[in-house]
Amino acid sequence: MNRKGILTVISGFSGVGKGTIVKKLLENYQEYALSISATTRAPREGEQEGREYFFKTKAEFETMIAKDAFVEYARFVENYYGTPKEYVEEKLSEGKDVILEIEIQVAMKIKEKYPDALTLFIVPPTPEVLKQRLIGRGTESEQVIASRLKRAAEEAKGMSQYDYLIVNDDLDTCVREVHAVIQSEHLKNSRNTEFRKKLEYGMSQFLKGDK
Amino acid sequence: MNRKGILTVISGFSGVGKGTIVKKLLENYQEYALSISATTRAPREGEQEGREYFFKTKAEFETMIAKDAFVEYARFVENYYGTPKEYVEEKLSEGKDVILEIEIQVAMKIKEKYPDALTLFIVPPTPEVLKQRLIGRGTESEQVIASRLKRAAEEAKGMSQYDYLIVNDDLDTCVREVHAVIQSEHLKNSRNTEFRKKLEYGMSQFLKGDK
Repeated sequence: MNRKGILTVISGFSGVGKGTIVKKLLENYQEYALSISATTRAPREGEQEGREYFFKTKAEFETMIAKDAFVEYARFVENYYGTPKEYVEEKLSEGKDVILEIEIQVAMKIKEKYPDALTLFIVPPTPEVLKQRLIGRGTESEQVIASRLKRAAEEAKGMSQYDYLIVNDDLDTCVREVHAVIQSEHLKNSRNTEFRKKLEYGMSQFLKGDK
Repeated sequence: MNRKGILTVISGFSGVGKGTIVKKLLENYQEYALSISATTRAPREGEQEGREYFFKTKAEFETMIAKDAFVEYARFVENYYGTPKEYVEEKLSEGKDVILEIEIQVAMKIKEKYPDALTLFIVPPTPEVLKQRLIGRGTESEQVIASRLKRAAEEAKGMSQYDYLIVNDDLDTCVREVHAVIQSEHLKNSRNTEFRKKLEYGMSQFLKGDK
């Protein structure tokens, strides 16, 4: 089988731990590359060009938009954020599964443009667990927690559009499951048409009985 | 997530090693039950009732047919072979993934009747490898090998109908991949509608802000 990388979207509720999951996935396995976004916002302390973001001027970003150089992009408040196509396609052709950790609205735009993308949604075992995790952090005010829960409730409406739901109860189990789902996807018949046709042709030669 | 077993069909070319793969799968993991066929043929030496087969008289078998008690059945030469429904459904409801190791023609009949069935096809890395394995056994005459290869060539035509293609190059890798594919299937959104709806409902309560 040939191995072209799979564009993999990972979304999940705020507070569900998807950042940690993606980090572990990249640490534990060789198969992945994390897509790095471009942004026009200024770097924050400790952020490095090409690690957290590719930092662009507004003019640079808009030139990229004009050249159709983004997998997707969006504008929040004053700033642009987007996923540069070049990096994603380079990694995919190297056989890396490229992880996009993105919001649900953006995820659906990607699925439209790349129907082959694999979409995973990380969920808590129960809504109560999500609430407790947000409260348990102890860093957020009651108001912030309430607004995050409301946002999660909004996001839940899009959950049904994802290919897989993966429960983050035990972190290591969750990371193993995410890995198993993505690697199993490579074995789908529909992703191996070329290999299958070659095999079909080779096998058909046995009917001639001269091989 | 609830866990209803998945009816899993494993097919593959004669000589590809699917018997060994299924045996290892059952040895290595707790998640599986192997479906045992019923047959009207006489037990061979060493065969035990309920291990290799459930042995039935022709009259018993035909009564079962009349009662729609088979997942599938077929008649080869003088004898009936079939998969009793009761055992399969009992194991599925216990949460076991039930493995049916069956021929390609039968597999497609099952997929029609049970659209939720998961179908895997085991392939050699190349046609040449399959040929060498058959020759390498050293137990078969040239004629038998030629007829098996012809049969494999016929079977290859049905390969495209399976959900997954799994290469048996290294046995342990293959068994791990079969396991990962079946277990990942449990995480499909479409197999967890009830869980998802419960979660959606629970999350929607946060919008009320009184929880």
